[in-house]
Amino acid sequence: MSDLARIEAAAARLAGQTRVTPLLNAPLLDALAGRRIFVKAECLQWTGSFKFRGGWSAVSALPPEVRARGVIAYSSGNHAQGVALAAARHGVPAVIVMPVDAPRVKIENTKSYGAEVVLYDRVSEDRDAIGAALAKARGLTLIRPYDEPEVIAGQATVGLEIAAQAAEAGIAEADVITCCGGGGLTAGIALALEARAPGLRVRPAEPEGFDDTARSLASGRRERNAALAGSLCDAIVTPSPGEITFPILQRLCGPGLVVTDEEALRAMALAFTHLRIVVEPGGAVALAAALFRKDLPDTVICTASGGNVEPSLFADVLQRYA
Amino acid sequence: MSDLARIEAAAARLAGQTRVTPLLNAPLLDALAGRRIFVKAECLQWTGSFKFRGGWSAVSALPPEVRARGVIAYSSGNHAQGVALAAARHGVPAVIVMPVDAPRVKIENTKSYGAEVVLYDRVSEDRDAIGAALAKARGLTLIRPYDEPEVIAGQATVGLEIAAQAAEAGIAEADVITCCGGGGLTAGIALALEARAPGLRVRPAEPEGFDDTARSLASGRRERNAALAGSLCDAIVTPSPGEITFPILQRLCGPGLVVTDEEALRAMALAFTHLRIVVEPGGAVALAAALFRKDLPDTVICTASGGNVEPSLFADVLQRYA
Repeated sequence: MSDLARIEAAAARLAGQTRVTPLLNAPLLDALAGRRIFVKAECLQWTGSFKFRGGWSAVSALPPEVRARGVIAYSSGNHAQGVALAAARHGVPAVIVMPVDAPRVKIENTKSYGAEVVLYDRVSEDRDAIGAALAKARGLTLIRPYDEPEVIAGQATVGLEIAAQAAEAGIAEADVITCCGGGGLTAGIALALEARAPGLRVRPAEPEGFDDTARSLASGRRERNAALAGSLCDAIVTPSPGEITFPILQRLCGPGLVVTDEEALRAMALAFTHLRIVVEPGGAVALAAALFRKDLPDTVICTASGGNVEPSLFADVLQRYA
Repeated sequence: MSDLARIEAAAARLAGQTRVTPLLNAPLLDALAGRRIFVKAECLQWTGSFKFRGGWSAVSALPPEVRARGVIAYSSGNHAQGVALAAARHGVPAVIVMPVDAPRVKIENTKSYGAEVVLYDRVSEDRDAIGAALAKARGLTLIRPYDEPEVIAGQATVGLEIAAQAAEAGIAEADVITCCGGGGLTAGIALALEARAPGLRVRPAEPEGFDDTARSLASGRRERNAALAGSLCDAIVTPSPGEITFPILQRLCGPGLVVTDEEALRAMALAFTHLRIVVEPGGAVALAAALFRKDLPDTVICTASGGNVEPSLFADVLQRYA
């Protein structure tokens, strides 16, 4: 199956099951940035991030008899919630392997969607190994967070919507900045835009110190991060770009963008004030790049990819930066 | 002109100039409330509230030679921003009369849209008199916040969108709870739903102590509030229901709903956690009623009518209630 055929099939399965999120903008935000910024507000997606798209896509693509045995996922929290809700709506069990240092709100919400949560240590344990062992023992199907074609196809529906919404807004050329972890969202959007809006170029954004994708795009091979924890942007910390996603990024994306944690927090505060949306740190790196990097075109579209943030952290951000 | 004809004409003028805001919901919010709650997120409208609709409708309806002399409005902040941006986009001057105790963010934003701001004291001064005098002296057209047919027709486009979005979601019967001040939004939505979705009944929500509309609907005449300041819900504190709006409310609305300030703040915290939107206190009273009142049907639609809130207040709400 071609990439586009897979994406269109996923879009058909997602129709009516996932939310078409708005492309937001604000005159005062544009004035601050000195360019037009459009924000694809995936924080308004069910479960608070785009991950529900990939979760729904993958769970709905399984043969019914396989799906009925249940699914398993490992995730710092957004993929967890996406798979948990997708499984619940299909009436099948979900086991979610989560790092012990994941935001409490993400762990609690994953449990609320009815999933069984298994906690692990991000630094000393290997989530892939844990996931594979549990999957084998219980007959569960592992739903990988990004190196899985049906997940990428689900995230690609963000790109289909961006293409349609950009056309409606009269935008033919722009950089599309994505919040990039393993590259599922970035690869998906890049594939969708290649087919539907070739004037829109994708550029991945990452937090300083966890810029494996930017370095990999520069060097031409999959670079690894030195650390695997310690970023405020928990949602997008992965060891390295994915095996499936990286070749797509290499073929279709412009250079990566890197922002500091403080820039991500400032972007959260500006999204609060001017867009009235709640964005988590990892979901704000693309907006931070759109606001604070210089080498960008007059029109930029960026993903606000998630909004699952601890209230105390958000309150602190408002007090310091809003 | 019939009410519906005026609303349809306003909708045509607003098309592409105002945002179609999403109707949000969340499984975990429904579980908490024990009913299905859909939130019309007008906090995502340009200027952060539905008031931009009425402002655009009124300014765009003026004869060009009248509009060119400029407009004036009196407002605690959301109508101010709506009229200021509508005037700026038409390239005409705007003078906005605002209470000195309006949230700083609303005053600053109104200025940022290019309007001249004149401050007054909410308790000792009469904003209508100030507005009328300035209008006369400078040849400005006064854009009233709710007792103005073109403003009501603009706000009614929220109702047109609710009717379409409810139909898409398969909702034929529900209560539609509105955040109610002078009644422009409530009257507009009620007129639109009367024409397009007669199974949806409007019920105005207000903060305790400022429930002039609920008492007026109960008594059958326009009751006044004892106080004119002192509510956290600054956006919806008005002396009494409007002269034009009240007969519409009387004909079309169910009984009013009243919530405490604390319930409004709790609704803000739950909207943060489960919907990832920023709602101001006055914009959260309808959601508070949907969450905390008992005598409601299984499906409720409510307006989150504005999201212009001081960061320090929002941070405090998160620390206390999220």
